[in-house]
Amino acid sequence: MKHYRKELWFDTSKRREFINITRDIQACIDESQISEGFVLVNAMHITASVFINDDEAGLHHDFEMFLEKIAPEKPYNQYMHNTYEDNADAHIKRTIMGREVVCAITKAKLDFGPWEQIFYGEFDGKRRKRVLVKIIGQ
Amino acid sequence: MKHYRKELWFDTSKRREFINITRDIQACIDESQISEGFVLVNAMHITASVFINDDEAGLHHDFEMFLEKIAPEKPYNQYMHNTYEDNADAHIKRTIMGREVVCAITKAKLDFGPWEQIFYGEFDGKRRKRVLVKIIGQ
Amino acid sequence: MKHYRKELWFDTSKRREFINITRDIQACIDESQISEGFVLVNAMHITASVFINDDEAGLHHDFEMFLEKIAPEKPYNQYMHNTYEDNADAHIKRTIMGREVVCAITKAKLDFGPWEQIFYGEFDGKRRKRVLVKIIGQ
Repeated sequence: MKHYRKELWFDTSKRREFINITRDIQACIDESQISEGFVLVNAMHITASVFINDDEAGLHHDFEMFLEKIAPEKPYNQYMHNTYEDNADAHIKRTIMGREVVCAITKAKLDFGPWEQIFYGEFDGKRRKRVLVKIIGQ
Repeated sequence: MKHYRKELWFDTSKRREFINITRDIQACIDESQISEGFVLVNAMHITASVFINDDEAGLHHDFEMFLEKIAPEKPYNQYMHNTYEDNADAHIKRTIMGREVVCAITKAKLDFGPWEQIFYGEFDGKRRKRVLVKIIGQ
Repeated sequence: MKHYRKELWFDTSKRREFINITRDIQACIDESQISEGFVLVNAMHITASVFINDDEAGLHHDFEMFLEKIAPEKPYNQYMHNTYEDNADAHIKRTIMGREVVCAITKAKLDFGPWEQIFYGEFDGKRRKRVLVKIIGQ
């Protein structure tokens, strides 16, 4: 069994942002020289997400509206977590969107359907945060 | 390390449907001859889900009501994604229900609690779509 | 490839409870003698969750409020599942919070960001229930 590890770093300019990291993950698979196995991609922070969906700006707007409707950022004092911080909504939003994805690697490629794209979902940005890529296989 | 890959295809007659695929996944494990490892089961489409819950019609109705309450299908024009398509709600519903499950394989069987069943969750059906089954182990 | 399996049992006194199991999972990794691989931690019951977030009481209260807002326990008769049981809300809450986590193991440790903690999320407690820990790697 072979294994591989890499951290990807992000520093968003906005509080919330979706970044397509599909090519970065394929580059990790290439570097790992693993052709059959699993790749785990997870946020290392608890106010960020890794998820798979469409790379379409309208849909990303719809996700923003949906998340703000069910777990709004403001007013900050609606959340007990917001004493020294103001990011309780980000903890909840990341939970809805998911911490991690596990993807199959087949013949050295991400084994994906036609529209699957991997995103880093930032919900409390404007600072350096990171994603872990871990691959096991052969 | 051994590895195995299979696609399962579905063609639902309704827009939304839950299909129990537990036996299909166990059949894949049997075919793989892997007795200890992980099986990844994921939708290859971004408007469908794979999730684990109870095989009980009342509960499935409750999930339908819950999902329609927080991410309703109509009116279609509430979503920016719905220009050439009408399935923004399906992208959101699949995100809530989850893209994938990873299950343990122990002694050549799905290592499950008493009521765990694996479902394909379709949210934009009436066309051929598929699920990926990838197994690694020994 | 090496593999390891353990069940962790819980018997909560309340219907809903979050229990930090991070140390238990690291103890499993220690016992497995696997230094590079993946650990899968999943609820074996369909009204419980395993998720990763912050160990902060205010935030846990916020999650409780959020979950009760979007999938309230009562009135019981709002759910079709609640004929012989009263736990339809628990099935939905566990789905939002997630059934499982997959974590990387690097150099024999949980490969975690600074605030990541693993929780057992109980939504229909007051009885013995369990979590599966399965590790594969080398």
